Amino acid sequence: MNTAALKHRPDSEDCYLLGPNQVEVRFHTAKGDVVQVNLLYGDPYLTEVDGEGTPVWAYQTQAMVRAAIGATDDHWTVAITVPYRRLQYLFQVVGVDGTVLLATDRGLRADTPANRQRDGFRLPYLHAIDAACPPTWAASIVWYEVFPDRFANGDLSNDPAGVRAWNPDAHPSRTDYFGGDLQGVLDHLPDLEALGVNGLYFCPLFAAPSNHKYDTVDHYAIDPAFGNKALFAQVVNAAHQRGMRVMLDGVFNHLGTQSPQWQDVVKHGRQSRFAGWFHLHGPTLAPSQTAPLTYDTFAFEASMPKLNTANPEVQAYLLGVATYWLRQFDIDAWRLDVANEVDHHFWRQLRAAVHAVKPDCLLLGEVWHSSQPWLTGDQFDGVMNYPATETILVHFLTGELDAPALVAQLADQRMWYRTPINQAMLNLLDSHDTPRLLTQAGGDQALALQTLAFTFLQPGMPGLYYGTEMGMTGGPDPDNRRPMAWPQLGSAWWQKVQAVVRYRRRHAETLGTGEVHLMVTAPGLIRVTRSGAEQIVGYFNTTFRPVAVTAAAELSQGYQNGVLAPNGFVIGQL
Amino acid sequence: MNTAALKHRPDSEDCYLLGPNQVEVRFHTAKGDVVQVNLLYGDPYLTEVDGEGTPVWAYQTQAMVRAAIGATDDHWTVAITVPYRRLQYLFQVVGVDGTVLLATDRGLRADTPANRQRDGFRLPYLHAIDAACPPTWAASIVWYEVFPDRFANGDLSNDPAGVRAWNPDAHPSRTDYFGGDLQGVLDHLPDLEALGVNGLYFCPLFAAPSNHKYDTVDHYAIDPAFGNKALFAQVVNAAHQRGMRVMLDGVFNHLGTQSPQWQDVVKHGRQSRFAGWFHLHGPTLAPSQTAPLTYDTFAFEASMPKLNTANPEVQAYLLGVATYWLRQFDIDAWRLDVANEVDHHFWRQLRAAVHAVKPDCLLLGEVWHSSQPWLTGDQFDGVMNYPATETILVHFLTGELDAPALVAQLADQRMWYRTPINQAMLNLLDSHDTPRLLTQAGGDQALALQTLAFTFLQPGMPGLYYGTEMGMTGGPDPDNRRPMAWPQLGSAWWQKVQAVVRYRRRHAETLGTGEVHLMVTAPGLIRVTRSGAEQIVGYFNTTFRPVAVTAAAELSQGYQNGVLAPNGFVIGQL
Repeated sequence: MNTAALKHRPDSEDCYLLGPNQVEVRFHTAKGDVVQVNLLYGDPYLTEVDGEGTPVWAYQTQAMVRAAIGATDDHWTVAITVPYRRLQYLFQVVGVDGTVLLATDRGLRADTPANRQRDGFRLPYLHAIDAACPPTWAASIVWYEVFPDRFANGDLSNDPAGVRAWNPDAHPSRTDYFGGDLQGVLDHLPDLEALGVNGLYFCPLFAAPSNHKYDTVDHYAIDPAFGNKALFAQVVNAAHQRGMRVMLDGVFNHLGTQSPQWQDVVKHGRQSRFAGWFHLHGPTLAPSQTAPLTYDTFAFEASMPKLNTANPEVQAYLLGVATYWLRQFDIDAWRLDVANEVDHHFWRQLRAAVHAVKPDCLLLGEVWHSSQPWLTGDQFDGVMNYPATETILVHFLTGELDAPALVAQLADQRMWYRTPINQAMLNLLDSHDTPRLLTQAGGDQALALQTLAFTFLQPGMPGLYYGTEMGMTGGPDPDNRRPMAWPQLGSAWWQKVQAVVRYRRRHAETLGTGEVHLMVTAPGLIRVTRSGAEQIVGYFNTTFRPVAVTAAAELSQGYQNGVLAPNGFVIGQL
Repeated sequence: MNTAALKHRPDSEDCYLLGPNQVEVRFHTAKGDVVQVNLLYGDPYLTEVDGEGTPVWAYQTQAMVRAAIGATDDHWTVAITVPYRRLQYLFQVVGVDGTVLLATDRGLRADTPANRQRDGFRLPYLHAIDAACPPTWAASIVWYEVFPDRFANGDLSNDPAGVRAWNPDAHPSRTDYFGGDLQGVLDHLPDLEALGVNGLYFCPLFAAPSNHKYDTVDHYAIDPAFGNKALFAQVVNAAHQRGMRVMLDGVFNHLGTQSPQWQDVVKHGRQSRFAGWFHLHGPTLAPSQTAPLTYDTFAFEASMPKLNTANPEVQAYLLGVATYWLRQFDIDAWRLDVANEVDHHFWRQLRAAVHAVKPDCLLLGEVWHSSQPWLTGDQFDGVMNYPATETILVHFLTGELDAPALVAQLADQRMWYRTPINQAMLNLLDSHDTPRLLTQAGGDQALALQTLAFTFLQPGMPGLYYGTEMGMTGGPDPDNRRPMAWPQLGSAWWQKVQAVVRYRRRHAETLGTGEVHLMVTAPGLIRVTRSGAEQIVGYFNTTFRPVAVTAAAELSQGYQNGVLAPNGFVIGQL
């Protein structure tokens, strides 16, 4: 047996509370190396009398299931019931070579009755307060990301000076303004409802000089070019009336240099009462092209001085902001910008403060890499799932990854997190930070739709970046931020995207919370099975030839007479 | 290469803040499978221009060291300096078979220039507030565990009714009282100072009916059989004057059934205003021999109803207790009973509350198993290190584990935790919960002393259970709780223990914070090297024959003319 490959981490995503008295346990072995894993488990304090009258640990045995196969590992899982809310457990591992070993908290042992009695792993007590529990509504949401300056200009009176004409084919520069605003969002809510999305994810709305507003000046003000608080309240209320959730983008990692706090530091230097709000290092604050920065920033961006979130004053300020928009405007979620570079300590405070106001507020971090440290239940409900969406893109669009590798990578990534967390990840194929899906697909609409349909069939909250439904294209930032192509509303492409969105919404329970199983059933043909209230099966042909497939076709592309065309997909209930 | 065995977990004990701008990184490979691991690291946002004028990630390369060999893994480590407090990194792994791979955040890749540019692991920002930083004083402490009823009876007037005679050979029953008290501790502080210990770890002192006081009635009162608050203040002050730290045992997992809170529940049932303080399940509260308990308890112990630490009232009560003894009596540390069965959420609150009063208060959890989830910097500084001490015992005393397995297990266990945490683990060879060291050693004093000296040479805070220095014996609880054998004070054995304690104290910096390296240099001969301010080397002969060893002998047993006898050890500076 490949003993060095046996992996289990107690009290982590490998063993956690799934529901009242319900625990999911995972174990990992080298691919193809192990034929069976049994979980031996019981209450740590519960004994029974053995044949010789000696009290011994009373345990049950349950076979684990090889639920997924990763790049190098087989992933075994089982869900068990724990009557006394305390769990002790061992793994009995049976190798293909016939070896039988116990994996214990102190290492590997021979499988003997005595060894089964000692050194179990522990989930000492099942505390609901420690569980990772995203709000239940998350699983039924399809998010829609609005970049406010580019979505719709509903009020010409608040346009910034020098606003450019609303031309969807314009290639914006980094400094252009197009006049989009909250009135535009309010005006177009019926269009978004028609599309089927039920979550509005706003890029920053607070006062800031740039067009993207990530250089916040005042977290307590709606940027005047977008509207005002009364209008924002109207937008939230109108969204709620349509059954839509509202998520704001919280830029808490840094401030803009135009903020009064930073301006005070510029003026008074280390004597400023805001000096402790930032990370100041050198004697001068003036950024220069040649000298290194004398303060910490986002990246090396001089215009975005990093906040010192270990400072209680900063904490109080930001927690005030986070709760203000909940209390006064009843928003439903925060997307937290550059979340990985802010300390865990602060995010724990934020979760507590936010949940004290609105217990089912969703907290979503912007983290581009693996994110276990933020997703243990005490910080975020999910993060932007760039690893999964990139994995999907490099299979479907560039072909860099073959179908088995796609399936393996997605399986490995699901093992990063607890199952409820996987259901609250944000699966966006593009965003204000990446090239548009259709551009990445080389303009091939069928390919883009197949990729979208595949993503909407995965666990996690699917999302659309504004304009995807209009067939918009655009390269890297700032080209991905062109003004919305409203003339495409209701077009054939728009209807295809709508069909995908509505299918997800119609089957929200199964697609949001059901089990997932991916398999390559023929070269390049991927089968996705989701099992919950219903059993939904999708096939995706990622080859260049037609493939024969027998399937239920509730949502499809290129599927006729049992043949699935290249770039085709067919999805339906079993 | 054994690719399934390659292991690294970002933002964990595998990558963490060691000091300002200092990060320790670890990587794990199958034993003997890899010849070199290089860390490729840099700021995630820092680029340089390559030969073709393209901006590429600017990284440095540093070879990792195979710092320890475990049961199935080689453990590689390196400490690096991170100028901009942000870290992106990859591992370049060179197999014995000549394979070269990159281990990335998205899995394994071929080692190509393009692959080095993408998918790095991240420690996004080095936040001191998230670091695991035990108080610096911890590394210089030798703890001494006092079981108050059995240490010394300094005041006959407060003896419980029916107290038994102070006979060190008595075999106590579970319900005996012997009259030990705080006056006894105060009287004997000079003896403890002479022994060399500088930390007093008190088993519970608060009002409770049992002799062990784990069934707390009032966390705000010293048990009258032990004294009162004025006397406790005297003890703390006298200890501080002698340079000793004081640690109290906080029993926060459960209350005693005699507590007013539980009594109110017994009287009023679910109508009690304390009903929410506990975990009540069934219709009746009366424990019975036949019916299952209708409330959660410690283990299945009816007299110890478990507290609901998710209840804000309970949290406020316990945080009040924890800070009261800090504020009013200036204690230095809390040992937290059954810490693993209380929720993480509560322990985070406790750390914040305690540190707001005394930033260098040590928090030590009672956890018997692997404890990563409690030792990430936000909860405890260390735990009772039963895994390490049990590993030591089964090699030195029972021979169940051979020397290479001992060295491998201790290496694997050190990899569970960050290095600063390893230095704050409590290494007790016995306690009020286990048979006494000398009894486990079959009465062999030389063997017991060798085991003790080995333990005192390890990272972590060494500790003595009261009476060890008197050569006391005793089997499992309650036999391990005999009255202190004061006539043995100053005996030859006492002096030997004193020498071990004083050696540790004299070399506290090196033994407390230095690097550790264990090696089996001849069959059964273990060499311990500690490298810091000094270089200290110890040899331990765990065979049944003499072994030739050339060593500096500042502290030794059975070492003469370059020959180390069985059970012998020799320790000195290089």
